[in-house]
Amino acid sequence: MSKKVIVQKYGGTSVADVKRIQNVARRVVKTKRQGNKVVVVVSALGDTTDNLIDLAHKITYNPSDRELDMLISTGEQVSCALLAMAIHKLGEDAISFTGAQVGIITDTSYTKARIIDINAKRILDELKDNRIVIVAGFQGITLNQDITTLGRGGSNLTAVAIARVVKADICEMCTDVEGVFTADPRIVPDARKIDKISYEEMFELASLGSQILQPRSIEFAMKFNVPIHVRSSFSNKMGTIISKEVKAMEDTVVSGVAINKNEAKVTICDVPDKPGLAAKIFKDLAKADINVDMIVQNVSRTGATDVSFTVPTSDLNKTIKVAKETSGTIGAGDVTVDNNIAKVSIVGIGMRSHSGVAADMFETLARKKINIEMISTSEIKISCVVKKELGAEAVKALHAKFKLSKKRA
Amino acid sequence: MSKKVIVQKYGGTSVADVKRIQNVARRVVKTKRQGNKVVVVVSALGDTTDNLIDLAHKITYNPSDRELDMLISTGEQVSCALLAMAIHKLGEDAISFTGAQVGIITDTSYTKARIIDINAKRILDELKDNRIVIVAGFQGITLNQDITTLGRGGSNLTAVAIARVVKADICEMCTDVEGVFTADPRIVPDARKIDKISYEEMFELASLGSQILQPRSIEFAMKFNVPIHVRSSFSNKMGTIISKEVKAMEDTVVSGVAINKNEAKVTICDVPDKPGLAAKIFKDLAKADINVDMIVQNVSRTGATDVSFTVPTSDLNKTIKVAKETSGTIGAGDVTVDNNIAKVSIVGIGMRSHSGVAADMFETLARKKINIEMISTSEIKISCVVKKELGAEAVKALHAKFKLSKKRA
Repeated sequence: MSKKVIVQKYGGTSVADVKRIQNVARRVVKTKRQGNKVVVVVSALGDTTDNLIDLAHKITYNPSDRELDMLISTGEQVSCALLAMAIHKLGEDAISFTGAQVGIITDTSYTKARIIDINAKRILDELKDNRIVIVAGFQGITLNQDITTLGRGGSNLTAVAIARVVKADICEMCTDVEGVFTADPRIVPDARKIDKISYEEMFELASLGSQILQPRSIEFAMKFNVPIHVRSSFSNKMGTIISKEVKAMEDTVVSGVAINKNEAKVTICDVPDKPGLAAKIFKDLAKADINVDMIVQNVSRTGATDVSFTVPTSDLNKTIKVAKETSGTIGAGDVTVDNNIAKVSIVGIGMRSHSGVAADMFETLARKKINIEMISTSEIKISCVVKKELGAEAVKALHAKFKLSKKRA
Repeated sequence: MSKKVIVQKYGGTSVADVKRIQNVARRVVKTKRQGNKVVVVVSALGDTTDNLIDLAHKITYNPSDRELDMLISTGEQVSCALLAMAIHKLGEDAISFTGAQVGIITDTSYTKARIIDINAKRILDELKDNRIVIVAGFQGITLNQDITTLGRGGSNLTAVAIARVVKADICEMCTDVEGVFTADPRIVPDARKIDKISYEEMFELASLGSQILQPRSIEFAMKFNVPIHVRSSFSNKMGTIISKEVKAMEDTVVSGVAINKNEAKVTICDVPDKPGLAAKIFKDLAKADINVDMIVQNVSRTGATDVSFTVPTSDLNKTIKVAKETSGTIGAGDVTVDNNIAKVSIVGIGMRSHSGVAADMFETLARKKINIEMISTSEIKISCVVKKELGAEAVKALHAKFKLSKKRA
């Protein structure tokens, strides 16, 4: 008997209907009967959250964030109660909780709250009583007892945070894919499942467009050293383990290729070349809660310069408004937008110790006649913005160049 | 400006869809703008609760009561969040709460919990801040933070309990009928809306089959002297005021006629005529949580007697099982069942001071050749069990006999 503490998180597609809830119940019970203590975190059934938001929008285009959280947090409450019933049916004891009930305390940023504390007592007591504990993902409660939700990927965050406080041996993210791949298999047919990856690399991949986990959850896991296992809800195969960097990982120069087509490039033209103006631009954008990604400023020749940056397309309208206002204030020129871009990135912890990776990337793209519009680098990743229609070709070329379909040492 | 504190409760049909929620929002805002402080208690949208129970039954025939409460309490959370949004849209400030959030503390009898305390602080604070407060009906939380529901008509109970702690001037039960009638208008076309009725009479009517309010809510209102106004959600007409008995009420001998077709008569034959056997029978039934209503024991002539009683048809299967076991234990005979009965009752506070009402009732039924199978009386009501198919005729005859279509003095 292994006697581990295991946190399992199941996303919306894994609990989309009664049959799938029963499937999850069987998996959970099996894990329990292998001698483990199990905490399960569940998302809302399939499209529930979207349906609730649609209902709110039938009443008002601009629902209050507090009431929206009150509304959509019901989705996870439904799925965790149903999962408890399905587990009872299989003869195991289980008990479900809302975020509030297990003391997932957050700040008051409705719809995107941050967890500030978890009172693990109730969970630990129930585990001690040999129960399977089910917790509604995605939600918490403020110190003033107002219900909050954690934003996109919030259930993953709940799972990692709970894994930390119950000192779980592993936090399993059970999802509809088999793990983390070297590239999106829909783009690169010979993309390979990665067996092990470091937090840092996964963080970059997530930030760069991988949809499997959100950067926030990985950041949290990395901070508290919570090992994560990304695996399929529908098979028993091993998926991808995300953990601390180990020596062997450094031998891999590039771990994966990511692509993000959901950004747009905004340029503020003719920004006067005076100190402090770039700061003013990005301070105004930050104030409006806009997530700026890459930034490029052309070398000034004429006393004025163009400042370009990328933002998620969902923030684009807000961005244009803010950018135009700022441009007026600082005496800059037009604001132009390019929606037709893709950001292609390579990520690898080995870049730290291997030189020439950037040159290899640029050369590979050049050989394919793919023009690079923006470049941004960090210690362990290089991103290039290219024309949207060339994105997939760029991913394929880079995947081949860095031999990612071959198993790592 | 009236500056009253008003609690308004809206049932499921009053908030069945977006249009009706908007209608409720307009009524609430109007009440607020007349200068009142308003607390609104809402039920779940239309069939939500039934749909959630159906979902649970797809997973298991016998869901745990705790998890069922966890599941179905989401219904009211959805409706109160949506109502808050609809009120915001009309330009008024409103805030919604679950039972847990406003500290509706109950015992641990899941699916039929009893309120043991309400912490009114949050509600009073929000009212002071000039907000409309919306509370999810039907639900509470135990001291151990487990979610409970209050059973059938639970939202009415929530409304009365809140009206008490906020010292409301009136608790309005807004529903799909215009008030309390002297009889069911579907049976008696000239049934009349009652303007004022005492708690005691309303309690009897509710116990006897009127579907408008549950006996529990009225008992609670009576205990704490919370005045209730039963009225339509869809019109501005005055409905029925339920309050303490006032002198004038005593002049009315009979206030209303009620009928209940949801009971069955069970007879345990040949019960040996020994002391303590009747007590044994009803103790066994009580232990099985069966709600026995009327009881009749025939005079014993042969050393054995028949004991008959009525129970809700929903408890019938359980009752037969218990009755057969008990019969075996005490050496009694067969258990027979009569499903084909209706209980017809007249209710009136004036019965206390008027004699001959029972005789009038029996005579009226006799004249219509309606045979009386069982009789039960209290200070302010008389009930007769008759054949089910004669129930409506009995109601009509009694309504006419006691001149209920004529307005009270």
